[in-house]
Amino acid sequence: MIKYPNGIRKNNTKCLKQSVANRGMTLEKELNLSNEYYLQANICNIHKKPTPVQIVSVDYPERSKARICEAYFKTPSTTDYNGVYRGFAIDFEAKECNCKTSFPFALIHPHQIKHLESVIFHGAIAFLIIRFTQYDETYLIDATKVCYKYHQKRRSLPYSWCQKNGYLIRRTFSPPLDYIKTVDQLLKEKENEKI
Amino acid sequence: MIKYPNGIRKNNTKCLKQSVANRGMTLEKELNLSNEYYLQANICNIHKKPTPVQIVSVDYPERSKARICEAYFKTPSTTDYNGVYRGFAIDFEAKECNCKTSFPFALIHPHQIKHLESVIFHGAIAFLIIRFTQYDETYLIDATKVCYKYHQKRRSLPYSWCQKNGYLIRRTFSPPLDYIKTVDQLLKEKENEKI
Repeated sequence: MIKYPNGIRKNNTKCLKQSVANRGMTLEKELNLSNEYYLQANICNIHKKPTPVQIVSVDYPERSKARICEAYFKTPSTTDYNGVYRGFAIDFEAKECNCKTSFPFALIHPHQIKHLESVIFHGAIAFLIIRFTQYDETYLIDATKVCYKYHQKRRSLPYSWCQKNGYLIRRTFSPPLDYIKTVDQLLKEKENEKI
Repeated sequence: MIKYPNGIRKNNTKCLKQSVANRGMTLEKELNLSNEYYLQANICNIHKKPTPVQIVSVDYPERSKARICEAYFKTPSTTDYNGVYRGFAIDFEAKECNCKTSFPFALIHPHQIKHLESVIFHGAIAFLIIRFTQYDETYLIDATKVCYKYHQKRRSLPYSWCQKNGYLIRRTFSPPLDYIKTVDQLLKEKENEKI
């Protein structure tokens, strides 16, 4: 409660809530910084794929300089991040979700689910990184489990289900989102499953 | 030699040469079609990364439609193609070369060489696909060998060296460039090296 000099009292809970949600960087920025850190430290080689763009016209004001003057965004047919770690092909999609109770499947394109299933079939380690911005919690969830839920014609993944089936990613200073340690946990679980 | 009615005689060897060079599709088109074929046939999941573009301004004529009106090409920091095959992370760069005697290293960015070395370190299967358009021959060469040559401060890879150290990729009808069979040969060689 803020006491203004003219007697007005304003409840600033909404403002407080916002400040919690935007406490840190966006998930994409944190992942890019972490990937940069991992690359420099020789831990893994994972990159974000560039946004697919359909280029229509390009202008050449100078011989060495090209300026794209008309282009359109294309729907991505694959996930955003992929690379290699400990000999494994890594493939994942990262999503932020503002909802408190669940992660809606509407946030993932159907061909992204198809892509995840395909890379799993070919032997990649695939997962989803979901951030519940309201709680400022980020979970890494095995894509096999997510795809299974998706085909049950569910409209969303409940928050409690993510807590139970996902791994909470630890926030650190550098890298900002140390998700590769969580990938280690996932790999360990997958090895145990095989035995 | 063409005999024109007015007595002019023109040597059309240059023209002939060109027709040989442009006999087929471009390497990129062939690779994209092959990757599409492999994806549908469930053989592997390899995609071309979108061209990295720095978007400066976007116009929204309609709510659901975004039109990029100013953007610039960025230098790629990674290779063009990556994916997963038989549990292996695959990473490669494809280049066409018009020269008869050698493939100049100037066609590859230094950070692409650095990227190839990094993915090899993390356990990926990395290679270069080089097409000598003058001969209409396409070679798959292990990136380890290419990087080794690069650090010898060489300016190019001689054509004879590529013939000796690379694998000639067979041209087929569908897929147009059946390079995954050549990857099998490379994997076999790598397994034999381990024994």
